[in-house]
Amino acid sequence: MEQFSNGDIFAGEVIGTAILVLFGAGVCAAVNLRHSKAKDAGWVVIAFGWGFGVLAGAYTATPLSGGHINPAVTVGLATESGEWSKVPLYILAQMIGAFIGAVLAWLVYYSQFAANADKDHAQPTLGNFSTIPEIRNPAANLVTEVIATTVLVLPILAFGLTTGLGESGTSVLMVSLLVVGIGLSLGGPTGYAINPARDLGPRLAHAVMPIPNKGTSDWSYAWIPVAGPLIGGLIGAGIYKLAF
Amino acid sequence: MEQFSNGDIFAGEVIGTAILVLFGAGVCAAVNLRHSKAKDAGWVVIAFGWGFGVLAGAYTATPLSGGHINPAVTVGLATESGEWSKVPLYILAQMIGAFIGAVLAWLVYYSQFAANADKDHAQPTLGNFSTIPEIRNPAANLVTEVIATTVLVLPILAFGLTTGLGESGTSVLMVSLLVVGIGLSLGGPTGYAINPARDLGPRLAHAVMPIPNKGTSDWSYAWIPVAGPLIGGLIGAGIYKLAF
Amino acid sequence: MEQFSNGDIFAGEVIGTAILVLFGAGVCAAVNLRHSKAKDAGWVVIAFGWGFGVLAGAYTATPLSGGHINPAVTVGLATESGEWSKVPLYILAQMIGAFIGAVLAWLVYYSQFAANADKDHAQPTLGNFSTIPEIRNPAANLVTEVIATTVLVLPILAFGLTTGLGESGTSVLMVSLLVVGIGLSLGGPTGYAINPARDLGPRLAHAVMPIPNKGTSDWSYAWIPVAGPLIGGLIGAGIYKLAF
Amino acid sequence: MEQFSNGDIFAGEVIGTAILVLFGAGVCAAVNLRHSKAKDAGWVVIAFGWGFGVLAGAYTATPLSGGHINPAVTVGLATESGEWSKVPLYILAQMIGAFIGAVLAWLVYYSQFAANADKDHAQPTLGNFSTIPEIRNPAANLVTEVIATTVLVLPILAFGLTTGLGESGTSVLMVSLLVVGIGLSLGGPTGYAINPARDLGPRLAHAVMPIPNKGTSDWSYAWIPVAGPLIGGLIGAGIYKLAF
Repeated sequence: MEQFSNGDIFAGEVIGTAILVLFGAGVCAAVNLRHSKAKDAGWVVIAFGWGFGVLAGAYTATPLSGGHINPAVTVGLATESGEWSKVPLYILAQMIGAFIGAVLAWLVYYSQFAANADKDHAQPTLGNFSTIPEIRNPAANLVTEVIATTVLVLPILAFGLTTGLGESGTSVLMVSLLVVGIGLSLGGPTGYAINPARDLGPRLAHAVMPIPNKGTSDWSYAWIPVAGPLIGGLIGAGIYKLAF
Repeated sequence: MEQFSNGDIFAGEVIGTAILVLFGAGVCAAVNLRHSKAKDAGWVVIAFGWGFGVLAGAYTATPLSGGHINPAVTVGLATESGEWSKVPLYILAQMIGAFIGAVLAWLVYYSQFAANADKDHAQPTLGNFSTIPEIRNPAANLVTEVIATTVLVLPILAFGLTTGLGESGTSVLMVSLLVVGIGLSLGGPTGYAINPARDLGPRLAHAVMPIPNKGTSDWSYAWIPVAGPLIGGLIGAGIYKLAF
Repeated sequence: MEQFSNGDIFAGEVIGTAILVLFGAGVCAAVNLRHSKAKDAGWVVIAFGWGFGVLAGAYTATPLSGGHINPAVTVGLATESGEWSKVPLYILAQMIGAFIGAVLAWLVYYSQFAANADKDHAQPTLGNFSTIPEIRNPAANLVTEVIATTVLVLPILAFGLTTGLGESGTSVLMVSLLVVGIGLSLGGPTGYAINPARDLGPRLAHAVMPIPNKGTSDWSYAWIPVAGPLIGGLIGAGIYKLAF
Repeated sequence: MEQFSNGDIFAGEVIGTAILVLFGAGVCAAVNLRHSKAKDAGWVVIAFGWGFGVLAGAYTATPLSGGHINPAVTVGLATESGEWSKVPLYILAQMIGAFIGAVLAWLVYYSQFAANADKDHAQPTLGNFSTIPEIRNPAANLVTEVIATTVLVLPILAFGLTTGLGESGTSVLMVSLLVVGIGLSLGGPTGYAINPARDLGPRLAHAVMPIPNKGTSDWSYAWIPVAGPLIGGLIGAGIYKLAF
């Protein structure tokens, strides 16, 4: 991470994480909200939408900051390299970017969110921004997020992508398809945060945005998609240091 | 853009944009029209069909013209480079190509369009060629197109693809998957033009082609998928110039 | 094509085309036949199955023969290069390979074909091997196949893949995704042969294989998916020679 | 295989195969189990989930062991190279990894498996871990697995990937998409083991894990997804040695 200036890191991670969350929250709105052309398009659309959000976000951020766009990746890379000094800057920028991305997704689907509120029975809107478990069980939900993030961070590290996730577009493609795979395979129980900023930033945005009849921001669950991915990032980096 | 001759630019952009729109209008017809094997195949098919239309079109046009096949990309690249002299040529060729692509798509689905008109209740056909918003709201529709195009142009620029979108096939693949992602995630409200030629060229073709019972060409909406993507291209290039 | 020995060309094209048709006929059986885990899995599965059949077949054949596995591609490359001497060998091998691939697909789905025949109302089986138009109209069907094959051969040529479709796996990937796109976008009317061997070889196999209650081999249609792709290959190569 | 130390081979194949099976068993649970966000998401999700499990697992294992993560691949590579001394180590590690992956998948979907058992009519759980044929016919099922694995191993060998499946991420991507294709096209009859460890390891795990109301582990079928893929690996390598 040392090769990037603080300003570039900040700009890259804000922009990259905003794009990631715009795509991710966008695809949830596309599939969940009424009056969307992708209504009920299914889990394959969700998983590819988030994955190509990684492609778009990391694609953009790589030349500025290495394209982490995920505190769990940042923590995993810091654990591997021992360089922790810029971790707070990365995470701050990722949180700001995730917040902005959620606002942008609301703007893209402004009419759909408005139409949702006009109905007698408005649907809760949090699921378009942050994760909600199918079965609420803190221990099980945490384990799911830990394992899913471990198998995000370990492959990234294993492939020698410690310096900026690779300079070439192909490396970004590989990571984005890895995220598609995690979504398809491991997203069923919790909706796969695997990224603390991707969940907490949009949850903050959901809490403050004036979406009519938006429903709860579900703060009691908020710690799990933060703690789980961070633990998973540490475990992934730990396995890497032991085995490689 | 300077390395290409005017003749090559014209040929490349006409051919490439025609292929793009052939695939894109084709996949809409495939999913929407009766007596198509892909009838009701869903949003995932639409998004991948358009995205691989980018692959096919940009793949073909890259050696001749750099493979913009989108005025918003051309404007974004011109904003970044300051070279505006060939922009009108690019856009003219893109418009002609998009018109041709729409005609080709009609020919491919000729029997399906004919069968549509034979029924007592012919379906409107414009949606196979140009975008129609789910909820008609000019300001909101414009914002959707602006944001969706910003996150098309910014990643393309950010990845250093200013000279011909990259010479290698991998770069074209990345852009095509980026377009798949925009479709999946941000296409719900307006059907994602993100390309003025892709919308206006086929709308002109729709207006003049002798498709029986074709319905309205909806000219009142036509300015939004032109203005929105152009604004988005400018914003994407502006962010690039500020941040990179 | 000159760099490959006759023996290697024959082996490569037989094996490669057999793999292509095994995957392609296989995915049709997977989606169409009762007692298959992929029953009714939809057009996206058909298109990706055929496309990754190109990946597998061309992947395998590339080091031996350049991996044409399609007479339309062979004819297109010959038109471009002017080297026609090995075209008959390529096409013969492709036809033999396509026949073998159809037999292998029947073996893979042997129980499913047997179960189909056991029912009172056996379904016709040709659609698992060869194309059947949704609306039978020779002129329109021919135009569909011509256009769909033109946009297969032109991008392949345009990208400078005249010598063996490129040596690298990435080029094969690009062509396979191009075929996915053609399937998604242009396959609705005729089921997209875009390859004379892929349609005629399995049709011959269908005619001779002892599949119980197999139904007609529909020879009256057989010329269209042969002539259309060959014309498309010539047009694609002609546009290439004019424009590039 | 000679360039890797025994310790690295063991670690790489355990980790890589565990990740493969975690993704693969995970995606089956995602689609099959109640209270999963991907419930009934269809065969396209199954096939891409398994394929991107190959991406994640081979991605991780490649620098340590070459990333075989499949005894059929190991046997195919040994047949081609004549180096058999490390085959037992590879297979032992793959079996251990597959067992671990199944346990991890159960942990990820712990609440879903628990909820399944709570119902009056618990569903059998084996299908989330190991393959079950749609029509039970040992000869036909064996043939299906033999053919499907032949077209896995032959393309891998043909592309010159005998030394570690290639060092670059792109090669891993190609193999993973090949596996997606095999799943889409050839998975209908048996659920495509094409990997003895991927089927036998999770079956052992299913037999010993304390999943409530888990149902039979179906040992009478267990030999087919072991023997079929091994025979297919030998045939694939044999064709390679004859034709290349």
